[in-house]
Amino acid sequence: MNEPDIVSLDTADPLAVKRDDFDLPEDKVYLDGNSLGPLSHRARQRAQEVIDKQWGQDLIASWNKHHWIDLSIAVGAKIAPLLGASPEQVVCCDSVSINLFKLLSCALRLQTDRSTIVSEQDNFPTDLYIADGLSQLLGEDRCKLRLVNEACLERALDDDPAVLLLSHINFRTGRLHDMQSLTRAAHQRGCLVIWDLSHSAGVVPIELDHWQVDFAIGCGYKYLNGGPGAPAFLYVAKRHLANVNQPLQGWMGHSAPFDFEPGYKARDGIGQFLSGTPPIISLSVLDAALDVFADVSMEMVRAKSIRLSELFINLIKQNRSLAELELRSPTNSDDRGSQLAYAHPSAYAICQALIAAGIVADFRSPDLLRFGFSPLILSFQDIQHSVQSLASIIVEKRYLEQGFNQRLRVT
Amino acid sequence: MNEPDIVSLDTADPLAVKRDDFDLPEDKVYLDGNSLGPLSHRARQRAQEVIDKQWGQDLIASWNKHHWIDLSIAVGAKIAPLLGASPEQVVCCDSVSINLFKLLSCALRLQTDRSTIVSEQDNFPTDLYIADGLSQLLGEDRCKLRLVNEACLERALDDDPAVLLLSHINFRTGRLHDMQSLTRAAHQRGCLVIWDLSHSAGVVPIELDHWQVDFAIGCGYKYLNGGPGAPAFLYVAKRHLANVNQPLQGWMGHSAPFDFEPGYKARDGIGQFLSGTPPIISLSVLDAALDVFADVSMEMVRAKSIRLSELFINLIKQNRSLAELELRSPTNSDDRGSQLAYAHPSAYAICQALIAAGIVADFRSPDLLRFGFSPLILSFQDIQHSVQSLASIIVEKRYLEQGFNQRLRVT
Repeated sequence: MNEPDIVSLDTADPLAVKRDDFDLPEDKVYLDGNSLGPLSHRARQRAQEVIDKQWGQDLIASWNKHHWIDLSIAVGAKIAPLLGASPEQVVCCDSVSINLFKLLSCALRLQTDRSTIVSEQDNFPTDLYIADGLSQLLGEDRCKLRLVNEACLERALDDDPAVLLLSHINFRTGRLHDMQSLTRAAHQRGCLVIWDLSHSAGVVPIELDHWQVDFAIGCGYKYLNGGPGAPAFLYVAKRHLANVNQPLQGWMGHSAPFDFEPGYKARDGIGQFLSGTPPIISLSVLDAALDVFADVSMEMVRAKSIRLSELFINLIKQNRSLAELELRSPTNSDDRGSQLAYAHPSAYAICQALIAAGIVADFRSPDLLRFGFSPLILSFQDIQHSVQSLASIIVEKRYLEQGFNQRLRVT
Repeated sequence: MNEPDIVSLDTADPLAVKRDDFDLPEDKVYLDGNSLGPLSHRARQRAQEVIDKQWGQDLIASWNKHHWIDLSIAVGAKIAPLLGASPEQVVCCDSVSINLFKLLSCALRLQTDRSTIVSEQDNFPTDLYIADGLSQLLGEDRCKLRLVNEACLERALDDDPAVLLLSHINFRTGRLHDMQSLTRAAHQRGCLVIWDLSHSAGVVPIELDHWQVDFAIGCGYKYLNGGPGAPAFLYVAKRHLANVNQPLQGWMGHSAPFDFEPGYKARDGIGQFLSGTPPIISLSVLDAALDVFADVSMEMVRAKSIRLSELFINLIKQNRSLAELELRSPTNSDDRGSQLAYAHPSAYAICQALIAAGIVADFRSPDLLRFGFSPLILSFQDIQHSVQSLASIIVEKRYLEQGFNQRLRVT
């Protein structure tokens, strides 16, 4: 694809204008929105307002006056449409790990005669650690984690597990599961599903209600752009809401927290999944960040995400000097999220050289370069520039210089 | 006490200068630092830096460059001296509720042949809810919550409970437990202790190490001034650190989180109590807020706290028109934290009238007015002014006007 064609892609891009909503460093192309989404102007303004005005001036009164007390529910309701969920089925609080613990406990309680959690060997590790922690707490007769490879997932359902726990998009390769068909297959065997949407929420169309998903979790700091460590969300299907009780029952999940009764009585609905007091500053920032989605559809976002990824793949293919890079993501765009992984024996050093050149990609051990495509901030010319930089680093072997191979602890 | 005497108390106050560290509303006296501590200049500056510079410009690189990855440990180490703890025994993450769940699980695992958690009927409810949630998850044979009145606490130890779970300071009355003696009594019966320091950290001298406390939790948003819903802390005695494992094991508690191994291997030391990704903006704000303690000792803070409280009590006593107010806090200052509770049949309306007059107190159902004394921001003249306002509201029966009795949901 030649230069004028790429310029015309940007000219025709209906999402190009969204970049103005963000405060991006001028000297970088940011291909790591799949790890940490960028700062939006709305997020910055809201942080200032919540700190200076709400906390600073109105102090304790802000719990009512500025609706802090309802913020977890309100932010959940704002995330819901991005997931194909009704507003009353999503709440925002705690971390993905903590929320998964709540949902796994609920799912196992619903499955009185089953105890196995099936997941993938290369699921995002924190999900596996949490399942393992629950298993150790309850004992293997009540909760046993079984890890299988992707190819064996459907077969594992034949053994009647209690819960199928999967990430919608694989954090390394970007491989996208068919959520609808796997959910249906699980339900046919009486198995409940929990989907981790951390790498898909805000970048891939999702239809939790329509696909009959039981439970889901996901994080606020990747494509939702909620800021570092932004609170996470959780989703519970309407049909389960009246039949579950989660063990991390804190005062914010009580039906009348300010009655300070010694006995716990859970709120009705999704609010029962709240535990302690949420981090209001971080939660407010996420709330404001979500407003950038108000005028875009997930279909538009997905269409641009695919175009960005395909352009990246094609530009790499066209460049013979990049032949050493081996695509480890699915080649069919329907089977991928908004990220690509390429293997290279010097992946770590190349990644460092790229970052030094202003192209922020990331590295996953042992040999993967990972490129994330945030459709709200990236142009097609950014993709072209990134591949050109990558090519010049590899052609000129610049990654062998300047200590790029000196390993730091990277995220 | 007459006017010149009170002015001289302020003149002689070595902590008077600390007020300049805070950004307080000019038209209010804030007697609710026991619910939500005020905004400090350092906290505001840090929020701006972490949002504009770290997140906005340095993006994902900030996990290393600005030490986000170590922030939970660093903030824990900064809180530790306020608790009489070594830096490597405290970590800052999650909420009080979540952290209590971790510690209760650990304590019960250490007590292989005991299963009862003893606590007080009027402990802060979220602590009781969490214990109840764990009991429902594990079954009463492994975890049973028993609530007793304060008078029966020591006797309850005769039944060999596994864990004694208490708040250092009662959230309603401000009653202060003798942590050292209750801990010793529990240990004599082979019982472990968990102290909730939410209402005492940052305002009362605490010696966790010296008093041989096993475990403690506490919140960051009261006297530590970390902002609304600031992350909480937890403490584990050195002797237990190598022998515990907590069930909410997320990737931040892994010994090598960026190796992304499917199997969990806990970090050594206090870092094993981390779970998911912490809310970095809220955590950074707390980190900066803690710097106001760098040049004050807890003994100085405590001495002023007692003087403020005693002045308040004496001014109320001296004013006959305030005779209807009944002190529900211990009369001996050694038995109190930094807050006072007064009962009055119209407490709710009086509280609303006080707030309208710029005196921010709070109300606890059914009939308690609660006044908190943050020694870093309050002057003795503030106390005088507050009691004068309270007297005029009661004498003039202003609380009967203007719909002050209309109940809002208050925090």
